[in-house]
Order: sequence, then C-alpha cells, then structure tokens
Amino acid sequence: MIKPGDAQKQGRAYDCWLAYRPLENAVADQYRTICKKVAVAGQSAIMESAVDELKRGLKGILGVEPEVLYAKSDTRALFIGSESGVELTADDMHALGDEGFILKTCKDAILIAGKTDRGVLYGTFAFLRCLQVGIKPEDLSRMENPAAGIRMINHWDNLDGSIERGYAGNSIFFRDNQFIADKSRVRDYARLLSSVGINGISINNVNVHARETRLITRELLPEVAELAGIFRNYGISVYLSVNYSSPIELGGLSTADPLDKAVQDWWCKKAAEIYEYIPDLGGFLVKADSEFRPGPFTYGRTHDQGANMLAKALEPFGGIVIWRCFVYNCRQDWRDTKTDRANAAYDHFMPLDGKFMDNVVLQIKNGPMDFQVREPVSPLFGGLTKTNQILELQITQEYTGQQKHVCFLIPQWKEVLDFETWSNGPGSTVKKLVCGKVYPQKHCGFAAVSNIGDNANWTGHVLAQANLYGYGRLTWNPDLSSEAIAEEWIRLTFSNDPEIIGTISDILLKSWLTYEKYTSPLGIGWMINPNHHYGPNVDGYEYSPWGTYHRADWRAIGVDRTVARGTGFAGRYHKPNADMYEDMDKCPEELLLFFHRVAYRHRLKSGKTLIQHIYDTHFEGVEEVEQFREKWLSLEGKIDRERFESVLERLDIQLKDAREWRDVVNSYFYRKSGIPDEKGRTIY
Amino acid sequence: MIKPGDAQKQGRAYDCWLAYRPLENAVADQYRTICKKVAVAGQSAIMESAVDELKRGLKGILGVEPEVLYAKSDTRALFIGSESGVELTADDMHALGDEGFILKTCKDAILIAGKTDRGVLYGTFAFLRCLQVGIKPEDLSRMENPAAGIRMINHWDNLDGSIERGYAGNSIFFRDNQFIADKSRVRDYARLLSSVGINGISINNVNVHARETRLITRELLPEVAELAGIFRNYGISVYLSVNYSSPIELGGLSTADPLDKAVQDWWCKKAAEIYEYIPDLGGFLVKADSEFRPGPFTYGRTHDQGANMLAKALEPFGGIVIWRCFVYNCRQDWRDTKTDRANAAYDHFMPLDGKFMDNVVLQIKNGPMDFQVREPVSPLFGGLTKTNQILELQITQEYTGQQKHVCFLIPQWKEVLDFETWSNGPGSTVKKLVCGKVYPQKHCGFAAVSNIGDNANWTGHVLAQANLYGYGRLTWNPDLSSEAIAEEWIRLTFSNDPEIIGTISDILLKSWLTYEKYTSPLGIGWMINPNHHYGPNVDGYEYSPWGTYHRADWRAIGVDRTVARGTGFAGRYHKPNADMYEDMDKCPEELLLFFHRVAYRHRLKSGKTLIQHIYDTHFEGVEEVEQFREKWLSLEGKIDRERFESVLERLDIQLKDAREWRDVVNSYFYRKSGIPDEKGRTIY
Repeated sequence: MIKPGDAQKQGRAYDCWLAYRPLENAVADQYRTICKKVAVAGQSAIMESAVDELKRGLKGILGVEPEVLYAKSDTRALFIGSESGVELTADDMHALGDEGFILKTCKDAILIAGKTDRGVLYGTFAFLRCLQVGIKPEDLSRMENPAAGIRMINHWDNLDGSIERGYAGNSIFFRDNQFIADKSRVRDYARLLSSVGINGISINNVNVHARETRLITRELLPEVAELAGIFRNYGISVYLSVNYSSPIELGGLSTADPLDKAVQDWWCKKAAEIYEYIPDLGGFLVKADSEFRPGPFTYGRTHDQGANMLAKALEPFGGIVIWRCFVYNCRQDWRDTKTDRANAAYDHFMPLDGKFMDNVVLQIKNGPMDFQVREPVSPLFGGLTKTNQILELQITQEYTGQQKHVCFLIPQWKEVLDFETWSNGPGSTVKKLVCGKVYPQKHCGFAAVSNIGDNANWTGHVLAQANLYGYGRLTWNPDLSSEAIAEEWIRLTFSNDPEIIGTISDILLKSWLTYEKYTSPLGIGWMINPNHHYGPNVDGYEYSPWGTYHRADWRAIGVDRTVARGTGFAGRYHKPNADMYEDMDKCPEELLLFFHRVAYRHRLKSGKTLIQHIYDTHFEGVEEVEQFREKWLSLEGKIDRERFESVLERLDIQLKDAREWRDVVNSYFYRKSGIPDEKGRTIY
Repeated sequence: MIKPGDAQKQGRAYDCWLAYRPLENAVADQYRTICKKVAVAGQSAIMESAVDELKRGLKGILGVEPEVLYAKSDTRALFIGSESGVELTADDMHALGDEGFILKTCKDAILIAGKTDRGVLYGTFAFLRCLQVGIKPEDLSRMENPAAGIRMINHWDNLDGSIERGYAGNSIFFRDNQFIADKSRVRDYARLLSSVGINGISINNVNVHARETRLITRELLPEVAELAGIFRNYGISVYLSVNYSSPIELGGLSTADPLDKAVQDWWCKKAAEIYEYIPDLGGFLVKADSEFRPGPFTYGRTHDQGANMLAKALEPFGGIVIWRCFVYNCRQDWRDTKTDRANAAYDHFMPLDGKFMDNVVLQIKNGPMDFQVREPVSPLFGGLTKTNQILELQITQEYTGQQKHVCFLIPQWKEVLDFETWSNGPGSTVKKLVCGKVYPQKHCGFAAVSNIGDNANWTGHVLAQANLYGYGRLTWNPDLSSEAIAEEWIRLTFSNDPEIIGTISDILLKSWLTYEKYTSPLGIGWMINPNHHYGPNVDGYEYSPWGTYHRADWRAIGVDRTVARGTGFAGRYHKPNADMYEDMDKCPEELLLFFHRVAYRHRLKSGKTLIQHIYDTHFEGVEEVEQFREKWLSLEGKIDRERFESVLERLDIQLKDAREWRDVVNSYFYRKSGIPDEKGRTIY
C-alpha cells in the first residue's frame, strides 16, 4: 500500500481538486505580476494554513513563490501584491458573517479578508479556485457567507480500520484498533474538506461498537485530541459518535436511563473529561434506538428525554448533540402491510417538536427510507417547526453503485434542497429550512456520510471525488447548480479544456438518472442483494424484516401509501404536497411506485405501459453506460493515463454489472407479468 | 463450554446410543446368570477396546462386572460365561469375512468371534445392542459381514475449529489452528463410529485451505498420527483431504501438473514421509477442479491423469485415492439454458471409465446436484462399470434443516440405495453397485459428511443422532429398513417403552417428507438463501452463477431435462429409466419439476393442479410439524427433561421457520401465477 502523505507516489488522483496545475495564458501573466508579495494580517494556526495553501497554489498554478510578510493586526486578511491597493470597509465587515470571506481586487492588488481567520482560509481556497479556472483578476471580487453553520462530514469508520459502507479502502484514521500514527494524510484530508467549506467531522461510525465506545476514555482521548488538532488548523471541529449505553459499558452503572441521576452525573463528568482534552469538540453524534443500537426506548423514555440529558452535559462546554432520526422497526413482519417504515421517523419525532434543548440538533435523512436512488423528501422537513435540524445526505454510494458506478449525486441532492414543503407558505424549501431561513433555529445545516478511504485516489472511483466536492460546495451555497459544480470540479481536477469539460460533464450530469434507469424504477427502491446492497435482487428484501417491500405480483407493483387506501404516508406532507402524492394522476411519475400500487398495464404519461417503461428504461440505462464508456474513450491522450485507465476500468465494471441489472430486473418482471417487450428484445 | 470427555457434565445426550441403560426384566436376569466371566482369546489394542466396551455395557445394562481372563490364542473371540458352551466351526470361519462377526449362544454361554479383532469389536457392539433392546440369549445367534469395505465418514473440519456446513458447534479435532490436546472426546467418537461399523474417517475439510494443506508436513503429521492412533484402536483408518496444489504450496515447485516428473516425485516422497508417521493411513480424499479448488484441469490434464498420479504415490503403502466427482461449472451464466449442472459429473467422468488405477475410488454424491431434499440418483451409478466407486451421502443437514429441523434421512438414503439402475439388467440397484455385487470392484462402499461437532449432544438436534447411527447401520447392511433402524436407535437411545418408540418413530419416519412439503416441491430443489442455505428464498439462486435454477414464470416452473426438448439429462440413464424420466406422464411425480417444465394448471395424478399441490403441501407440512410438536409434548415426564426440553426447543424453531417457508413459498407462487388457493387460506 502506498504510504499516506507520500503525494508523489500517490499518483495524480491523490490531489483531487487541489492539484494546482500550471496555468499558461494571459490571465496567468496578469496574476504573476500581482502575486509577488503577500502581507499577512493576523497570526494564527488557521491563518498559517491559509498562507501555506496560498503559497502552494501560487507555486503550482503560476510558478510564483511570493515574499510573505507578517503584520500584527486585529484584521484577518491576506494582502496580495501592492499593500495599499484594496481595503476593507465598514460595510464589508458588516456584511461578513463569522465564516464569510471577501475577495477584492484592483489593478495591482488582491485582498482576501474575513471576520475570522476561518473566513480568510475559505477565501484563500476560493481565490485559488478562481485562479485555477482562469477567472480574470478584475472579475474576482465577491463576498460570500456560508448558507448554514453546520457543514459536516460523518465517518462510519471503525477502530479496526474497516468502514461501514466504505468503498474506497480502509479508514485513514484507524488501523488494527489503533490510531494511524502517520497523520500526513489526515492533514491533506483536512485541506480537501476545508477547501469546500466543511467545518465539522464525526470521526467514528454511528454504530458504536465495544472498542469505539472507549474513544471517550482517557485511554483514547489523547489520540482523538491529536486528530482534533489537525482538523482545528483547518477550521474543522471534531465530533464523536457515542454509545448510548456508555454509562453501563464504561461507567459500570446498571442503567443508562436518561432520567437516572447517576447516569446524568456520569455524562456530566464524562463531558468535562472529554473537554479537558478537546476544548472545542463539536459535540456528540448519536444513533439511538435504531437497528439494534441502545437508546432511551430501552428505559421507556422518549427521544427528547434521551437527547436532552446528553445536551445538558455538553451545554457548559458549548457542545451540541446531533441526534439521528433514523428510527424504525427493523423486525417488521413482511406479511404486515399496515406498518410502514416510511412513516417511522415522522411518527417518532413529530410529537417531540419543540421539546428538545437548543443545543440538540436532529439529523434527518433526505428521504423517509434510506438513501435510495429515488425517494420523496422526508416529511419531517417542513413538519418540524420548533426544532434544530440538519439534512443528512449520503456521499458514500451505498445504494448508488458503490463507487464502481459513476453516479454524480449533486442533481439528486439539488432536488431535495429545492423541494417545496409549503410548511410556511411558498418558499419553504428544504434548503431554506435547513439554513434556518423559514423558522428560527440556533443550529442548522448539513451532514453527509463520507465516501473516502485510504485508496490512493481517496474515493475508489476518481469521478466520485466530485460528490465530496459538490457536497461541500452545496453546504456553502445550496443555490449552486449541478452544472456549475460539475464544471468547476472538472476544471480544478482535470483541465480547463472545453472538450474535456464537456465530455466529463455530460457523463456526470446524466449518471444519476442512468443508474436509476437500470436499477430501480419509479421510486420503488431496494431490489438489491441484502446486506452488502450491491447487484440486482428484486426479491432481495421482499420477505425480510427490514420494512422495504415492493409487493410485486402478476398484475401490479408498488406500495399504496395514500391516506385513503394505504399506509397514510402521503398524508404526512403539507398540502398541496399531500394531495399531489395522494392522487395517482398528480403524483410525480418518478415516485409513482413509492406512493401507489400500479398495474403493469397502466399507461404512464409517456403513453407507455408501466411494464414497457420498466423494460425500456433498463435497456436505455445500459445503452447510456455504453455511451459513457465511448465518451470516456474519446479522452484518451487528453488526460493523464493513470486516471484515464482507472476510470475506464470502473466503467467496464459498471457496464458489465448494468447489463446484469437490466437482465435480472427485466426477466423478473417478464416472468411475473407474462407481458412481452413490445420491441421484442431479449428478456430471459 | 463443557469440557470434552467429561461425560457426566455433558448430560444425557452425550452418550448417544451407547448409554447402556439398566435393563430390568426377565431377559436381563437370564444374561446376568451368563455374563459373570469373559475369556478373551487374542490380545490386541482393538481386542482391548472390545473388552472395555463389553465391561462398560454389562455394567450399565446388567450391573455386572465380569471377571476377565486372557488366553493367548490365534482365535479372535470373546467367550462369555461357560468356556465350553459354544465353539467356532470351520464353516463359521469360512463364512466370515475379514470384518464380519459371529454371535453364538447356548444355555450358559455366549461367543463373540471374528476372523479379525475388528470383527470381534463389531460383534461386541452388536451383542450390546441386542442386550440393550432385550433380545433373549436364545435369539442372539447370528453371523454378519459388512456389505462393503469402505464405510467412511468425511469431516469438513478446518484447523481453526470451524466446520463447513457444521450445525453442532465446532470441531472436536481442531481449535485455534491447533489440534485439541484433550483427546477423550475423540475416543468417545471413535466408539460411536465403530459401534455402527464405520471403518474410515477423513478428518479435514475437502476444501483444503492454506493451513490444512500443512497437515501433510512433518510439523503436523505427529498430531495426525496421534489421532490415527485413537481411531486405530477402534478399527478406523484415518484419511487426509489434500490440496492438489501441495507441490507448489509446500514443495516450492512451479507446477502441480500430474504429468510433470518433479511433481510425481514430490508426491512419492511425500507419501513415504506420511506413511512413516501413519503406516496404516487410509489414503487421500481429493476435491479437485471443483468450486475454485485446484486440480488437473489447471494443467490441461484429465481427472484420471490427476488421480492416478496420486494413486501411484500411495500404492506402495496400500493407500487409496478417493476422488470426488462433484465437478461442475460454478460460474454458469443464468441466462444460459443449454448448460446443465446435472449433466456435469456424468459428462466429466463417464469418458474416463476404466482409466483409473485400481487404488483409485470415485466418490459420487447420491444425486447429480448437491444433497437436495429430493433429487434423482446420479446416473454415474450404473453408468460407470469399470471403476471403483463409493456413494457419498450428507448426514450434516445442509439443505435439510441444519439440525434445527428434525429430518430423519434414512428413508431418503434407502430410496437411493434401492434405486434400480438397470445397468446390468434387473437387480442393478445402487446398493448392489456400491457393494461391488454388480461389477467387480476392488474398493467400494460408502462415504458421508459428518453431522457432529462439539455440542454436548454431538449433533445439535438430539434426533439428528439417528442420522449418524442410521448411516453407519446402512453401510453395514443396506437392506435394513428405515423402520428397523429408527426403532433400534430409539430403543438404544431412549427406551424400550413401546409408547416412546411409537411416538418418536412416527416423528422420525415422517420427518423427511414433512420437510420436503414445506420447502421445495417435486424435486425442484434450492429456493433457499444463498451461502448459508437456510430459510426460504425462492429466487435465492435464480440469477446466480451456481447452475441451480427453477425458471419459474407466470405460467410454469421446472427445468426441461428431456432429450427431446431439454438439456438431455434424462438420457444419461439406462432404459427404461431414461424413458421414464423423459415422459412427463411416467416420470415419478416427486421428481416432476426436476425433469420437466410444468404449467401451474397441469393436473397431477392426485387430480390437483400443480399450483394447488404446492399450496396444499406447504400448508400440510406446517400442520405436520405442529403434530410433531404435539406428539413430542406427549413424552413429557416419560423421557429425561434435558433431552425433552432440548428437542422441544428445536421443534419450536422448526415450527416458526416452517411457517416462514410456507408463507414465503406460497406467496411467491401466488404472486407469480395469480392463481388463488382453492381453499381460500391466507397467502400474502
């Protein structure tokens, strides 16, 4: 294995979007004349990170090694070029949020400033992005504040080095039940995260097993503190996933009941102990009463009681409790058609709205099920009005091709962010809700499950780097378009060559819908192999206890989730969404089978029958992957061989496996419905 | 865990059919008057095992501790009671085979004799069986020779202690990559095996992994020799499963090509080395070119070349090579309907008939697939006429309920043994073939995969002990009936009480067909969860590369294996079997879906449609398990609580899981066919 931190040996893909390739054009010359000197106002570790990055970027992109001067100052800024060219106004400072930055230019100077050193760091990365993509100095000026305060990454890393749902190798933090001593790769990871505005990271799996429970003990806290120190220099707070049963497992208590005084005291003392080591720990992330994890239900308590008890312990130290809403009955009888997992999170948490302390944040998955290729938005968004909340996305491609398939997820996330909940009239979109613009929230924002591992290219599939990049960019600015993010990422990662941008953009922007086509139709989800969640298996979860059924028979498929006839899930939404989902004719077709039971011979708006739609999309999906491969082949010689070959290899796997998906799914439905393909293609 | 050998703590189930319970009746009194003295003619370790067992049995059953006298003698016999009462005649000796025994009685004496000490040991166990079940001394006389020379048990034990397809705990031989030091349990196992006539045991898994490959090195051979010593005292030869690639993995050669001189030499030297440690090693068991195991195919050689090379190495030491015929393409494309796994073993081995050396034995699974609840007999039986062959059965219940379900397999095996192949005219049954009575064979007989582990009761399910018992009894005498074996086992294991015998017999004798009813109909097989092979999953292998498909669609199910329209498997049999299987109307209905593709609306001989038969049998199967449970409950207080509870616990699991099987399978076919149950029962 390549040693982390040994960037040259890691290969071209290791640098991701921070490769700082030479820019050779007139714009570069303009910058070269400016960027000979840098004056640093305000000294701190984070400022030093900014300066380091600026030097690295200028050297790479322009070949310039600027003279760096330091000035003691209350201002936090980098002055590039002439010292007197640009200045900060009171208006600027007023407009800036705590983490915002300002870029200003004149003929011979560039100013990167923030209200805090974090702002300067974000500004520096933004400046280098502009430089790399060739934006002219005169077009550089901008002021940006992040959309929300919590912009987090969740790692599902275990101390043994394994990663739950990891598809890019093992953990970069842990190996063989120890922290990895060489931290150079962690520092590079902090740079990557910070460059797109991420400011929080939970380092261990939400399923906290025996060893990971010990992360909050004096035995392991010094090691956590060391990691936290590296991230701190890049403005990133560390969080820990904790085991709700810690008072029993670590404290020797007989209970973890949140209303028990001894339990409360134990957590208060524990919090004090943890903050000794990491005074700026972000807080705890908690998966409780979910998929066999312990929680307040064990003691007949509610989630607010459970969360508030922890919140009280963290409050004196400014920590927060991030409490996951992924709570459902995972021992459902498949024969039971009344129970609906889709209802679970809503039904558990809506009655608790307003009961959580203000340093508790609910972390809500984008959909009511579990990161399927297509789901409606969780009705908790717009449902909860008096509770801090963040949106949980999944960057790691558990159900979207496991980084063997290209699946650019930004368009999926954009649909979620732009979803109109009608919670407080028009404009109550998910992005406004989780940015605290609809209801006042002390804490709000974003979390997402990491897709990185110790593979040389971080993400297994080189093109999957774009998902991490895009996630960060959206947390900063959810109004960015998928197209803009794709182009920016390609320019930074590969080239400013319009042909390369066009080709890779085409692949990325289409890839999610392509994956959807050859896997799971019209919102039905699942139909994959149990446990590892890869590969077609239409009945894979059909007779399981996991609450995820398609109920296909010879005539129809889909789950009736209407209020009138079904599980009532459609009614959890505000009008007019509830009415839209309730009515088969108004329901968006991509979610038709999520909300309705539909006959194979039912005509869709396209005029096709449902069954023909299934056949057609599955054939089309494979054809599109064939096109991706063709397009990628056209890049041979235009990008470095290493990344060219690596992506090609994955596309070959994707094509082979997409064909398997097509054939298994089509055969399944043909064998069940007996309705032949109108076009007479081969179905087995 | 209970320490092996600590019989008292192991509980009542540990002793199996060698419990030697007190007999309190007039017959016992008769024996008590006889069994006061034992004269031993011929001394050896095996004779000593016989004397030990006799003493143990007499003490347990009669409370008698006989005086034992030793006489130097060429005769091998135990004289119980008066020394002059019975004697061996020349005719007796002539009739006795090498392993046979004779029991003779007169008023005050009993003679147990054999041509060899092995014979005496088998005779002793037979005598104790007769005693325990209460056969009067005057009815004791008999002469028995075993049906075939090879009566073997195969262990699929790995050095780490795990057992492939083991459902009764871990290995009694190995733990943590070492041999278990305490051998007392191995000795008890040798007694159990020997008591039913088993004379060979392969101690390690046919899938020989890296560590097990080293069993044939000087590092581990002393440990193998120690085990062999224990088994030797009970007349059992040890065999080793070997890795075909050993010359590469152990010898550092670049090839394992059987025609390569260096490879041949390596094996010759290796054989000499092994026989230094274990001069009476039975030989090698080899799984080659099967399920990713290496073999001669790797080098473009044939199986006869591969096997004969090993046979030559073993020949000087009297060892044999047992070569498994379980060879098929396990990477089949499910779309490919031409390839048929059922044909594979036949097509691989038939062209090689007569090409094997006479110390090679082919080990042929009972069916062409893999130990399903119902399969036709492998056409290699009766196909091969010039090759040593043994029948391979599976005692461990991989596909028959994994020792959670009661499934007495003797009736299944009896069907196999009694199958008329017509190979050499009428009377060419499998049992005659594998006993060398149809064609001359130097080596013939039986092998079966063990169902035991380190559970206190050996087999997980107490009633599964009957399968091990019955297997042994059948290898000795395949003409024994299922009923006789069941009764004998119950009498030895539980009681001579007719009510207990009746109740347990009822359960045992019905159990295989009951299991078949709620699992897989009419010979179609599989429909279980992949890998672990437990629990219903109708499509579990349908789109897999394993060659095991049911091809169910909305109209029909089954694989057409006819010559006229299908894969041609039916034509591998001799007439009239070939004609019988070819013709849907003549094909035995229990194998209908194995040989034919049949519409759900097809009427069976019962007048029911196929689909109604599926529904009915699945409901019936569950009802029968309910009856088993009721029957078992009637034994409360009549047998010891420990075994009563233990079996009840398993029956509860069986009932719960049988319902799951019923509901999943019925729902699957209802959802696919759209044909409702005529009786309107609940199908989901």
